[in-house]
Amino acid sequence: MLKPLYEKVDLPVASIRRYLEPGPIVLVSSTHGERRNVMTMGWHTVIEFSPSLIGCVISSNNHSFGMVRDSGECVINIPTSALAEEIVGIGKCSGAWIDKFETFKLTTEPAKLVKAPLIRECFANLECRLVDDSLVGKYSFFVFEVVKAHAATTPKYPETLHYMGDGTFMVSGKIIEQHPKFSAGILWRRILNALRPVQRA
Amino acid sequence: MLKPLYEKVDLPVASIRRYLEPGPIVLVSSTHGERRNVMTMGWHTVIEFSPSLIGCVISSNNHSFGMVRDSGECVINIPTSALAEEIVGIGKCSGAWIDKFETFKLTTEPAKLVKAPLIRECFANLECRLVDDSLVGKYSFFVFEVVKAHAATTPKYPETLHYMGDGTFMVSGKIIEQHPKFSAGILWRRILNALRPVQRA
Ligand SMILES: Cc1cc2nc3c(=O)[nH]c(=O)nc-3n(C[C@H](O)[C@H](O)[C@H](O)COP(=O)(O)O)c2cc1C
Ligand SMILES: Cc1cc2nc3c(=O)[nH]c(=O)nc-3n(C[C@H](O)[C@H](O)[C@H](O)COP(=O)(O)O)c2cc1C
Repeated sequence: MLKPLYEKVDLPVASIRRYLEPGPIVLVSSTHGERRNVMTMGWHTVIEFSPSLIGCVISSNNHSFGMVRDSGECVINIPTSALAEEIVGIGKCSGAWIDKFETFKLTTEPAKLVKAPLIRECFANLECRLVDDSLVGKYSFFVFEVVKAHAATTPKYPETLHYMGDGTFMVSGKIIEQHPKFSAGILWRRILNALRPVQRA
Repeated sequence: MLKPLYEKVDLPVASIRRYLEPGPIVLVSSTHGERRNVMTMGWHTVIEFSPSLIGCVISSNNHSFGMVRDSGECVINIPTSALAEEIVGIGKCSGAWIDKFETFKLTTEPAKLVKAPLIRECFANLECRLVDDSLVGKYSFFVFEVVKAHAATTPKYPETLHYMGDGTFMVSGKIIEQHPKFSAGILWRRILNALRPVQRA
């Protein structure tokens, strides 16, 4: 299957929550010295808007762990469901012996502020710097600051994959948008109205 | 709209990832002294299977912050999209002056190991104890251990809501299950096959 290569625009880093908050599976790329690598990650959360902080778990069993910790950088790439094969494959093998970008035929592009590569087949790329490693020893929990963000403008809501463990994935469904001019107080009515047909189906 | 009250069974705490990993919006209930409260939360991640650890952000602007920090406990309740009205409403008002369980007509039930109440209209309830507050001061980031988990057995995959910021929600879509007897190596083929019709649609 031919994968799309997304054209992207710069995004204010404080706006990246909409990409990560719904919980998509992501691909973390890293570079250290001559080596580059990529792994699949499901355990991440937004921590702060501004500075734009993300927390995530990169297990010390993974080759990526040392590369990210020692370089202090990574890129969080957000794939669509079109990359299902790559998402699973990349999460099942180690970059210690192979170049996964070649194995999985992914197109890389230099980032602006970090050395880790952007993946062009992903619709958003978040350049990250490690800002807090105080829980890395205890839980392999890294706090990154997103220092630069790139995102495709179309489609507005790409179909993402969400992991549920044990080889089960959820595919993102219907989007319910709130018009900015509506007050918070009546947001729930709109959501409720939008949801009713879904619930009946 | 009448809300379902789910019947639940005990769940091994190491298995809760499938409920939280796809990134659903959750309701955090807390008790401190005579007071009880509930807030909406989107910023959470699984941190470890065993012990079963969850990390999440409860902003210090929220009334829940002090209640959870001082009691060292909470319950993470996972609602379906049927609770859209409550999810938004509970996330837009403070429990400092009102009892949100009464305001939003939620049925509470005592938890087994913590004082915070379970919400019966939610299909899963995770009883949590605060095990690490070292990043609470800096990022309002709490690390909880799930000490007891309750989950409805049916429906197997309830429809969840996933927040994207700015009043936009994603409703969980199609589920792709991996049969346990298939090897990891061919998982991606099954996912890919299952996805193709979705992508063509
Ligand atoms: C769907 C999925 C989600 C995963 N989520 C994580 C995660 O959040 N953290 C982690 O450390 N590993 C996670 N993994 C495992 C790593 O991707 C896997 O161990 C990978 O082979 C590591 O590659 P590396 O050794 O080249 O770094 C996940 C794997 C899959 C398939
Ligand atoms: C969809 C949604 C997601 C939210 N996610 C979070 C979150 O992850 N962390 C947080 O501190 N507040 C979050 N909030 C805000 C709180 O729910 C909100 O401030 C609430 O009024 C706090 O209630 P309390 O003051 O009674 O504790 C969210 C609100 C909404 C509507």
